[in-house]
Amino acid sequence: MIIVMKVGSPEEEITRVSQEFTDWGLIPEKIIGKHKVVIGLVGDTADLDPLQIQEVSPWIETVLRVEKPFKRASLEYRHGEYSDVIVPTPDGLVTFGRNSPVAIVAGPCSVENEAMIVETARRVKAAGAQFLRGGAYKPRTSPYAFQGHGESALGLLAAAKEETGLGIITEVMDAADLEKIAEVADVIQVGARNMQNFSLLKKVGAQPKPVLLKRGMSATIDEWLMAAEYILAAGNPNVILCERGIRTFDGQYTRNTLDLSVLAVLHTLTHLPIMIDPSHGTGKAEYVPTMAKAAIAGGTDSLMIEVHPNPAKALSDGPQSLTPERFDRLMEELAVIGKAVGRWSQPAVALV
Amino acid sequence: MIIVMKVGSPEEEITRVSQEFTDWGLIPEKIIGKHKVVIGLVGDTADLDPLQIQEVSPWIETVLRVEKPFKRASLEYRHGEYSDVIVPTPDGLVTFGRNSPVAIVAGPCSVENEAMIVETARRVKAAGAQFLRGGAYKPRTSPYAFQGHGESALGLLAAAKEETGLGIITEVMDAADLEKIAEVADVIQVGARNMQNFSLLKKVGAQPKPVLLKRGMSATIDEWLMAAEYILAAGNPNVILCERGIRTFDGQYTRNTLDLSVLAVLHTLTHLPIMIDPSHGTGKAEYVPTMAKAAIAGGTDSLMIEVHPNPAKALSDGPQSLTPERFDRLMEELAVIGKAVGRWSQPAVALV
Amino acid sequence: MIIVMKVGSPEEEITRVSQEFTDWGLIPEKIIGKHKVVIGLVGDTADLDPLQIQEVSPWIETVLRVEKPFKRASLEYRHGEYSDVIVPTPDGLVTFGRNSPVAIVAGPCSVENEAMIVETARRVKAAGAQFLRGGAYKPRTSPYAFQGHGESALGLLAAAKEETGLGIITEVMDAADLEKIAEVADVIQVGARNMQNFSLLKKVGAQPKPVLLKRGMSATIDEWLMAAEYILAAGNPNVILCERGIRTFDGQYTRNTLDLSVLAVLHTLTHLPIMIDPSHGTGKAEYVPTMAKAAIAGGTDSLMIEVHPNPAKALSDGPQSLTPERFDRLMEELAVIGKAVGRWSQPAVALV
Amino acid sequence: MIIVMKVGSPEEEITRVSQEFTDWGLIPEKIIGKHKVVIGLVGDTADLDPLQIQEVSPWIETVLRVEKPFKRASLEYRHGEYSDVIVPTPDGLVTFGRNSPVAIVAGPCSVENEAMIVETARRVKAAGAQFLRGGAYKPRTSPYAFQGHGESALGLLAAAKEETGLGIITEVMDAADLEKIAEVADVIQVGARNMQNFSLLKKVGAQPKPVLLKRGMSATIDEWLMAAEYILAAGNPNVILCERGIRTFDGQYTRNTLDLSVLAVLHTLTHLPIMIDPSHGTGKAEYVPTMAKAAIAGGTDSLMIEVHPNPAKALSDGPQSLTPERFDRLMEELAVIGKAVGRWSQPAVALV
Repeated sequence: MIIVMKVGSPEEEITRVSQEFTDWGLIPEKIIGKHKVVIGLVGDTADLDPLQIQEVSPWIETVLRVEKPFKRASLEYRHGEYSDVIVPTPDGLVTFGRNSPVAIVAGPCSVENEAMIVETARRVKAAGAQFLRGGAYKPRTSPYAFQGHGESALGLLAAAKEETGLGIITEVMDAADLEKIAEVADVIQVGARNMQNFSLLKKVGAQPKPVLLKRGMSATIDEWLMAAEYILAAGNPNVILCERGIRTFDGQYTRNTLDLSVLAVLHTLTHLPIMIDPSHGTGKAEYVPTMAKAAIAGGTDSLMIEVHPNPAKALSDGPQSLTPERFDRLMEELAVIGKAVGRWSQPAVALV
Repeated sequence: MIIVMKVGSPEEEITRVSQEFTDWGLIPEKIIGKHKVVIGLVGDTADLDPLQIQEVSPWIETVLRVEKPFKRASLEYRHGEYSDVIVPTPDGLVTFGRNSPVAIVAGPCSVENEAMIVETARRVKAAGAQFLRGGAYKPRTSPYAFQGHGESALGLLAAAKEETGLGIITEVMDAADLEKIAEVADVIQVGARNMQNFSLLKKVGAQPKPVLLKRGMSATIDEWLMAAEYILAAGNPNVILCERGIRTFDGQYTRNTLDLSVLAVLHTLTHLPIMIDPSHGTGKAEYVPTMAKAAIAGGTDSLMIEVHPNPAKALSDGPQSLTPERFDRLMEELAVIGKAVGRWSQPAVALV
Repeated sequence: MIIVMKVGSPEEEITRVSQEFTDWGLIPEKIIGKHKVVIGLVGDTADLDPLQIQEVSPWIETVLRVEKPFKRASLEYRHGEYSDVIVPTPDGLVTFGRNSPVAIVAGPCSVENEAMIVETARRVKAAGAQFLRGGAYKPRTSPYAFQGHGESALGLLAAAKEETGLGIITEVMDAADLEKIAEVADVIQVGARNMQNFSLLKKVGAQPKPVLLKRGMSATIDEWLMAAEYILAAGNPNVILCERGIRTFDGQYTRNTLDLSVLAVLHTLTHLPIMIDPSHGTGKAEYVPTMAKAAIAGGTDSLMIEVHPNPAKALSDGPQSLTPERFDRLMEELAVIGKAVGRWSQPAVALV
Repeated sequence: MIIVMKVGSPEEEITRVSQEFTDWGLIPEKIIGKHKVVIGLVGDTADLDPLQIQEVSPWIETVLRVEKPFKRASLEYRHGEYSDVIVPTPDGLVTFGRNSPVAIVAGPCSVENEAMIVETARRVKAAGAQFLRGGAYKPRTSPYAFQGHGESALGLLAAAKEETGLGIITEVMDAADLEKIAEVADVIQVGARNMQNFSLLKKVGAQPKPVLLKRGMSATIDEWLMAAEYILAAGNPNVILCERGIRTFDGQYTRNTLDLSVLAVLHTLTHLPIMIDPSHGTGKAEYVPTMAKAAIAGGTDSLMIEVHPNPAKALSDGPQSLTPERFDRLMEELAVIGKAVGRWSQPAVALV
């Protein structure tokens, strides 16, 4: 249930109203929009009468019920206003949201060694990325496959961050590693295989770093938003939703089916920003540019692109990684679409 | 197997070489590219030795084996050159192909009456479409649902064509109707449910009108191209491939999952032009603009958009139809992307 | 809508009531159950008032609305009574239905030559099959693959029928072949790829031979029953539904995912008999026995099993075909389950 | 790689050979089969020459390479011999395996209170079950839905165990709860949503209780076996694989598509015992008996059935739960099939 306050409602009245709902046993959440303040009400609201709520204050404009099963994640909960996830990085704040330029995340599947991660960071920064991705802990289908360098890789990410000023995005697989990861990461990733690892969701929801929530392999839109709701309900409002391809009957050419229709669907359902990952989404480097361009035209707020200095020798996911040279060209191609739709930032000044 | 002839090969030599292969029991097909002539060889080529073929003429540059199961549909068969499907319409030739502006097909799901089809045709023409779509024979899940007006609807399409100069695209469900349909249609559509109706494919392949082949609900890319191969093998080289959404586990918000990755995949596999149908692909009018924009940025050669003067009263597929007003606005939005990627035609002069 | 007549309703009253509904512009269909007569009413019944209908005759017991989109195919339409499809064969009538032994259909994917088809027929007959399957017209993914011997193969099926007394089941792909096929076939098969070829469904519905309707690769249960409804609505009440595997994300070991849950689901929805095809359903001969046993325990009314005298040399679908020896053993294994559930016929007397 | 020792190999020779491989840096695992001892070799065996290994001892019969990506889980690793998972319960040892009667696990989705869990335990025990299932920690799509009573529910399971002598199976969602759960549970369940929670897999693999590994919603067979491999590789050889329905395009009638073909496929790939869960697999109580019967005929080693004293009032998954009365009847129906295939234990003596 949400309470839309009238324009110009006095601060103390908003506080008083919130206190009133707290006294009723509900959890009021203040959401400050561009023009109005909305109070989200979480708890056992099923039997509440909107008219009765209306009488709590003359500054209440309307009382609306959130019909969706995901409450805090729904667009209704913010009365139709999209949220920004603002991430501090050494180079300044980067905003993920519908009114900001497309944020670019790039980097290798896994952190292999210092030289490669720093070199990749430099290159993607020079090409215009704001974030470096790179796995320290890797979810691998086989227990015998390379599982990531773990803690030592976190140190390498920190070095790359210091060197380039890029923000860092890396995945958590085990809640026990969360603290260590949060020391380095600016955004913490929950992978597709853990999208419904509810224990982990509660824990990333209880810490302050923004969370990138990848869609599960066969997660419906509703399940995905409910997974985001676990994080929001635990107190962390900064969730970015990342589409990375779903499982379908056709895996002959693409590893997954990148479902770009989430751009259309999520924009009607949720206020949370959206990222598209065409690298995992297709599994093949040569398909990445087409899908990245389509994603920008479709209104994505962010892109995640795998880049590796030598894809043929990558320890994981080489076939879907672009070379730094190809990534440079891709950024130029993306700029054409990004500018046409008014969502491209000024080119970063090259580091080299 | 393909025989690439050297630049400047004399016409009579190409004829002689082709005759030689005919004598061997093979079917040679001459493909005239921008710079070179290629001879496609169909038949029992498995045991042929490329070196032996090479000796047939000093004008032969190289002999290459087509590894894909789809031979004539493969990009290799045309030695990497995309084909154009050129369709005569009352207003002139319209080209579907990678080097041409995005061709726009619009109109209602079914032809309901003369007023609505002529009115829709005028409106979509004015907004910039080159083709009118409209079903005379409708494949409906229920035998009790409206099945299309059949033959009389063909007459109404003819009227709309005469009135506006638009090309006509309409579906054939029964080979017995093919002749009647071909009198009116400029492009004949084979629907998703008939994608592997091989009898029908052979018959549309044996008539001269271009064919729009919709992807089956759960057809793999290979099956789709093999279905195109049935048409090509029957002698009709003019096939356009139309993606219209595949069946996945999530049908909560979208009717189908529009698989835009076909743009990336097909461009590496086939020379045939591609159309995207975001209306069936999503099943909801509000999702159409996002997907149409993404499709253009992803390099589609054509779009098919459902437009109905009064979607709420449509006899079929109302929820996925745009109003003419929304279509006008969409065309303006698409022009922004289309111009950015250099694939937009000059706006048509309004008829009204 | 259905009208349940009281036990002992006089014949002339049933006729009078039916005539009354005909006068109202509806189509009454008399269904004779074990104990009662039911009149199915097809047509525009949405606005009819059950109470008003009740008044037509004191012999009317109740009037019930069929809520399902499939009317004639629904279990409600027969007031909960399963239907039998009774097929005349040279050896006598064979019944497909819940109160009869499991009917066994066996034979090769395609009819290759007289020796192989007659030999296979003898063997499967000796092992206890009632029907011979064998393709004369084959739906093949590739236009270059063996397409079946067509009309000449029909002659070979006729020979095998005469030789063994088995009933014949073979597929129609083109309505133009229907007459020829019906001369030989006792049951006419519509394949998975044509499940929504509505033109063909109408035509097999307008001829008198029973129809075996295979489920489409990604057809929902509702779509499948609606396809059956096309046949029933065209006048042919003898439809058998055949599950042959659906398309899922996992094709590594099985060609399709055989969906045995249709046994549970269809038994609550439709009165039509059910067949399971574990050969296409799994695509591998070694998986067939397990699934055939499971199907019988789950209550299938019939099984279709591919048998080929020399699977390794089969012109199509060799990997999923059993040898006659393996089929002999399978029949013994199936008898154990079939007898346990009371649905096994006396072993046929061996021909040899 | 596996080393098959000759029949009668002296114990000390087997030890010596194992030590030799340890010296080479490999991990030898002794597997005692019915007739022979096999030494499984894990580690970097890619470059080893089987002939060289053969020379280590004259008691070595053959050296075979395991080609599958899952090594310890493969049937080859045990040289074609199926493994038994033997679970101690208060009432004695229960064996899950191909040569044992079908083990029956029954109980409610979640443990709601002492009365209901003890009552359910008595009833399912009386009907013939060997294990009680019941969730203390529940993975729920919504953060606002009942999440299980947690630790206190474990106490109630212990009470039911003491009262009835049944073994206990319950799910772990968070590794932090593992110790508490293992105090009560005889088999620890990893749920479908955590099938690729590799951190959790490693931890259940490092503790001694047998593990029930449910298949992920869209897990391929290979991914499922690789998940089992994580547990085996961590040192726990007692893994039972549970099929609980996969996600497909059709969720109209069933919640999932129960994939019984795993019975056929897994029996050719792995030595691990198999359980089928028709309750989650279909999501509807009325479908459970059909699928349970089919599973037994198909060769399942175990069944998991949801039973609740009052399904209409269940806190979770009521629609798929049988009443105790229906479960009594089901056990009688299953006995018919179970006895026919020689895999049914003597009826338990009723407690009441």
